[in-house]
Order: sequence, then structure tokens, then C-alpha cells
Amino acid sequence: MNKKVSPRRLKGFQDYSPEVMAKRLHIMSKAREIAGRAGFQEVGTPALEYAEVLLGVGGETDKQVFRFMDGGERDVALRYDLTVPFARYASENYGKLPLPFKRLQIGEVWRAEKPQKGRYREFAQCDIDIIGVDSLSADLEILVTVQGILSQVIGGAFTISCNHREILSYLIRKFLDVGDEETEQKVLIVLDKLDKIGVKGIIELLTKDLNIDSKKSAALLEVLSGFDVENSSKLTKHFEDSEILKVWERFEKTIRIASRFSGENANIKIDLSIARGLAYYTGIVFETTVDGVKGFGSVCSGGRYNNLAERFTKYEMPGVGISIGVDRLTALLLDEEDKATKVPAGVFIAVADKTSVETAFEIAVMLRSGGISVDVVLKDQKLGAQFKNADKRGYASVITVGSEEIKTGLFSIKNMKTGDEKKVKKLELASSL
Amino acid sequence: MNKKVSPRRLKGFQDYSPEVMAKRLHIMSKAREIAGRAGFQEVGTPALEYAEVLLGVGGETDKQVFRFMDGGERDVALRYDLTVPFARYASENYGKLPLPFKRLQIGEVWRAEKPQKGRYREFAQCDIDIIGVDSLSADLEILVTVQGILSQVIGGAFTISCNHREILSYLIRKFLDVGDEETEQKVLIVLDKLDKIGVKGIIELLTKDLNIDSKKSAALLEVLSGFDVENSSKLTKHFEDSEILKVWERFEKTIRIASRFSGENANIKIDLSIARGLAYYTGIVFETTVDGVKGFGSVCSGGRYNNLAERFTKYEMPGVGISIGVDRLTALLLDEEDKATKVPAGVFIAVADKTSVETAFEIAVMLRSGGISVDVVLKDQKLGAQFKNADKRGYASVITVGSEEIKTGLFSIKNMKTGDEKKVKKLELASSL
Repeated sequence: MNKKVSPRRLKGFQDYSPEVMAKRLHIMSKAREIAGRAGFQEVGTPALEYAEVLLGVGGETDKQVFRFMDGGERDVALRYDLTVPFARYASENYGKLPLPFKRLQIGEVWRAEKPQKGRYREFAQCDIDIIGVDSLSADLEILVTVQGILSQVIGGAFTISCNHREILSYLIRKFLDVGDEETEQKVLIVLDKLDKIGVKGIIELLTKDLNIDSKKSAALLEVLSGFDVENSSKLTKHFEDSEILKVWERFEKTIRIASRFSGENANIKIDLSIARGLAYYTGIVFETTVDGVKGFGSVCSGGRYNNLAERFTKYEMPGVGISIGVDRLTALLLDEEDKATKVPAGVFIAVADKTSVETAFEIAVMLRSGGISVDVVLKDQKLGAQFKNADKRGYASVITVGSEEIKTGLFSIKNMKTGDEKKVKKLELASSL
Repeated sequence: MNKKVSPRRLKGFQDYSPEVMAKRLHIMSKAREIAGRAGFQEVGTPALEYAEVLLGVGGETDKQVFRFMDGGERDVALRYDLTVPFARYASENYGKLPLPFKRLQIGEVWRAEKPQKGRYREFAQCDIDIIGVDSLSADLEILVTVQGILSQVIGGAFTISCNHREILSYLIRKFLDVGDEETEQKVLIVLDKLDKIGVKGIIELLTKDLNIDSKKSAALLEVLSGFDVENSSKLTKHFEDSEILKVWERFEKTIRIASRFSGENANIKIDLSIARGLAYYTGIVFETTVDGVKGFGSVCSGGRYNNLAERFTKYEMPGVGISIGVDRLTALLLDEEDKATKVPAGVFIAVADKTSVETAFEIAVMLRSGGISVDVVLKDQKLGAQFKNADKRGYASVITVGSEEIKTGLFSIKNMKTGDEKKVKKLELASSL
């Protein structure tokens, strides 16, 4: 092996150091705990699927998929989200899965996007979904559960902004005289840029790309951006049929109840201007920003998708779900908090001479079984070097094991912070730490 | 969306139901707990790597890799194990990583193997490794830690069989008059089949494929299979140089100490006949079988690889590690135990009328924050149907919320096992469950 291979990673892919991993695992374990308590059950699906299963849902995603022919000439792709594979799973298991089914799934997804700060080609998502029912309670359950998870993992305040696709569509059709679904979809993609280019930019883009009269666009944006929950009649006066009024009432009630349980850090509100890029949403949509953090985008988003399973099955399986961007959230929390968070260090066992290795491990096994974190020296090193290393790595205490200690039955424990040292019997080591 | 897409999975890929997932997560969380206590730190690496990083290590693996050109014409591959990517990680981070480094990693790997019972193309591994030192203590730490993890997750007894590549090579060269490394590697691959084809089969295969004299093979197999720890001089009399005797002494001492701490279910023993397929091992090798389960193969294996990082760096980074086959172990434990293990069910809240949804969620949020698992009905259903479903899904109790209950402030709790029902105030619900 003389010619070296460069130990490089692919662009847009990252390694996770122990510090970053600890933060990711904390988010995942909190999600498991809170969602589990709300009756969500965790499932898993493969990273690779038939390309036809994942593609053609609409929106921007098809272009971003890692797709290839496998060794058996099958057209396959890496999943780009956890929602479409779950629709496949629920359809494949129709009749076996008790419906409504509350599902949790945590896993990596892959998108061949342009890598940029905070955007990677591989990242973990944590999804909660309810499939098999279209009800206010289901929408509410998603909101209540996700705010419970985020309250536990985000130190400060955050805002979950909610909109409703049917209401947004109704207003687009009404204000812009848009008749066909395709143009409506294009308007949604433009509206999704509101955060980045502002009201003026949106109006210009609608004129330029879709030839829409700027006055009409301005009137629509006035309604969308000017919504005030205290004066919602300014909006509802535009609802001319009873169907859309019913949709509004359910939506408004969902948000009102969710707000009541949202805790002190969570702000759940209606924002009629949010659009979400994905084409498969049909009802309520969510997106989440952390207060006081600008230009970071959404850390958690989703919505209701009543027709997604139609791709696979003749049975009706309306769904609603939300996806927590575990790695986006991790990046954000590591920015906020101390990046150098150390994995907590416990006890280090120094070994004075080779013959004492066995006793050193005996003590390690004993202390670990009592729940204490213990490292044993692994290198043949002089005692002085072992203490120096232990100090550098930040262990709280060092126990020395050597033939002298084994003979007398007394082992020294040194507190590395205070420098205090004491000698105790083997069985008293645990209680002396 | 009229033409349906078949909701099918790729051959060799599996979904994980909540029951299977619960078992996998249990194994993973025990590994995190026990390895964490022994000072192992968890890292993560990407699923995709440059093909040249993963390939060319030797052995059977190159043929089994999912490899393709990505959109940017990069030759990429899905990782087939967690060891080679970790060697890349350690090399890339040389100088930053404190050595010796004790690493834990849990993740999926992909192999385009022929799918068969218990063998999938995607499966999770849980690896612990120590890189940056070649010592008895490091080998011992791997054995002690892995037996700690397996004792927690395997109900019954298991056996970790250990061998040493240098000793096996010495014996092969001596008994078979094999001089070159290539033939030696081929002999190892044949020996790896001992479990499947027996001593006679091995002797035949060595004659047929490698033209090795059957008497010589028989003599070698006599030594390998006939090893007895109580009478090890039968083996050591063949060690004619002091170097190999030293290797033997360290190996034998490692196993002897590890056996002392192996707990009542773990059996750690020397088995000179195990070979391990992977070419990168250079010292101790491990493989693990569950006692009383035949034909299932190893659930946990590994070894020392002192030259693996040489591919990437001029620095010496000897390593030793072991990999727990999480999905193999899951399959085994699900076979053994009750496959129908239910996710533990808690409380179901039935809602008598639409206006009571808000109070139902208020009670759910309150109980969940006290650590209780609570489901709220999500469908508009008559009360009778709700109780029937709750019974079918196995909830322990059902709380009914309706306008009557809200008015009186008394909510009924029904114990679904005994049928007992009582009425209590909202704040007494938690303590009455």
C-alpha cells in the first residue's frame, strides 16, 4: 500500500464529531420521548427505493435526487425525504396497519442541492405523521406534539407559522384570476420567496414570469401580509362560498387551541404568506423559525397531504405531518451555545506497571457497572505522562493501580481539579469518587 | 394521478415495523450507554464516499458495493462497513483527534449481496473501535465493552470466539509450506468455511483449489480444531521463534483476563480455526455466536487492523474494533422472543362531542407532561366505536371527555382490563391512572 488515497469527503457531506453527535442524539432522543408519549410509533424504511416510487410527486425535488442503475439494472434512488417512502409503506401495508396510524421516523435523506452554509447533501430528518384521517384533532396533535419537542430542544423562543393551502389557493384564484393548477403552482413557488425578496420583489416576479397584473398582485399581498388575527373579518369578507368558510373555521380553531397549549417559548400563529415548496400539500402547512435568528430559514416544516397515497393505492389515506430538520437545528444550537462543549469526562485509571493491567480492568468493570464513566490507560506510558494526558483530556479524577497498591489493597484517587489525593480500599472507590 | 405506482420495496431491503424498531432501538441505546460509560465517543460519517476511499481494501467486499457516478460525474459508493470510513475520518482528522481515540458509531451499511434469510442489502451496524494504539489493554477494552453490551441485549448465553491472524498465518505457512501472501489469503478464505463444510470439506477444497497435500491440511486442522486451553503446550511446541511466542503470550493473556470479567452469560474463548473474511485484519480477530442457535452465523465480529489507515496517511494509526450486527441480532431476538411484542399502550382519551376536543387535548398535554403515554381520538366517531377501537388496540384505560363531563368537572376513567369505572376531577386524573 504505497500509493496513498486522499482521505477526503464528498462536497456537501459532513462528518459528525462527538460534540456535534451529542447534540444530534439529544434532539433525536427528546423527539422519541415526547412523540412516544403522544402515541407515535417509530418505523423505518430503506434509504434506497425504486426511482418511480420517489419521483414525480411534483415540486423541485425530482431534480435533486441521487438516482442510478444498480447492479441488477434497477432504476433506484436515495430517498430525498421521509414522507414519500412513508406513503409507500402505508400503502404497502394497507389493511395491516391500524388506522389512523401515528408514525415517528428518524433518518438521513439525500438531496443533490448546491451545498451552502447550513445546507448539506445528506442530513437527518425527524418526522411525525398521522395517516388515515382528515380531522382537526389530527392537525392539532401534530402541532401540540412538535411544539412539545421543540420546547425541549430549543433553548429560546420559536415561532410556528401556519397557513392553509386551500385558503391560499382560493385567494390566488380570486385575486389573480388564475384558473389552471399549473399556473397556481408557479405562483406558490414565487410566493415561497417572500422572505428573501420581499413584497416588491414578488410583485415584479409575478409580472415578469407569469404576466400577472401588478395591481392584482399588490391586492393579494395586502391581504396575505396584512392578516391580523384580532381583525380576521378583513380576510373572511373575501370568502364568498360556505365551503371555504368552513375550511377557514377549522383552520382558525386548530391554531387557536394549539396556541393555548404552546408553552412559554412557543408562538403558534397564522401567516397567510407562507407557501412551502412541495407540491403535495393540500391543507394546513407549517414552518418554524427560531426567534432572533435571521436568514436561517425553517428548522421544522410540513403540512397536510391528503392525496399523496393516491399514487400507490385506491384506498383513501389522508395524512398530515411535520419534519424536524435535525442537522439544521443542530447547526443552529451549536452556533448559539458553546461549540466546544466537551463530552463529560469521568474517571481515568492510570496503570503503574504492566502486571497491574488485570486489576485496572477489574476496577473499571466494577465502577462502570455502578454507572460511572471510566477510561483505562491504553498505551504503555510512564505514570507522569499518563497524568499529564488525563489532565489534558479533562478527567475529573485519576485512580492509580500498581503492584504497590495491589499489595497494600489501598488505591489512590486524585481529584484533578483540587489536586487532593486520598487512599481507599477497592470496594470504597465508587463511593469515594 | 390515475396510473398507480406499485408500492413495492427493492429486493433485500426491509421496512421496520414499530415492534422491530423498538428492538433495534433497545440494542442501540444499550450500546450507547455501556460504550459511553467505557469512554467511547460517538461519531458519524456520510453514507456516500468517493469510491476510491472505500474500495481496494481486499477481500470479497469490492464486488458487493453499490457504486455509481453522481450528477457531478464523481465516482461514488455507499459504505459497506463503518471501519473503512472511520479510517478515512481518523486520517483526515490526524492531529486534531486525541489519540488513542475510542470511537462508537452506529449506522446503516449497504452490500449488494444475494438476499437470503437474515441477510439484507441494507443493515445497521454498531461499531466500537480504538485507534492510535496497539496494546493488550486496547484489545481487552474492546472485548470487555462488547461483552458488556451483549450481556444486556442477549437474554441467554453467547460465545465470543477469538483467534489471532499472525498465529494463524504462522501455522498456515509452517504446516502447508505456503510462502506467498496471496495463497495464504486464499487459504484463509477456505478456512472461513469450516462451519459450513466441516474438516473433511476444507481438506478437499484445499487440495482441489490450491493443490495442497491433504496430509498437510489434515495436520494443520488437527492443531487448529484440537486446541485446548488446558493443554496449550500442544500448540506452543510448534512456535519455533520467540516473536510468535510473544504474540501468543499477549493474545492468551488478553483472553484469560477478558474471561475473568465476562459475566455469567458470556463465554470468551480461543478458537484457532476462525478466519474472518476481511483481508485487513492483522492481529486478534473476534466472532460471536448465540448459544443454542445453529446456522445463524456471527452476530458480532471484528479484529485488529494495524495497517488500514496506511491507505490514507503516512502516520501510524493501528486500530482494533468490533461490529455488532444490529439487524442480525434483532432478527435473532425476535425469533426467540414473542414476535408480537406490543409497544406498551397507555391512556386513550375518548371525545363524546366535537365541542370537547379542546378539553381533551388540555388533559392529554397535562398527562403527557407528567410522563404518561396518552392518545386522543382523531376520528369523528360515536363513543361506542371509540371504546371498541381502544379495546382492540390494547390501551390500559380510557378517559371520556364530553360536554357533560366539562360541566360537572368530573371525568370518567375506565380500566379496560377490569372494566371498573370511576369519576374524578381533572387534576386527579394523573394520580388515578
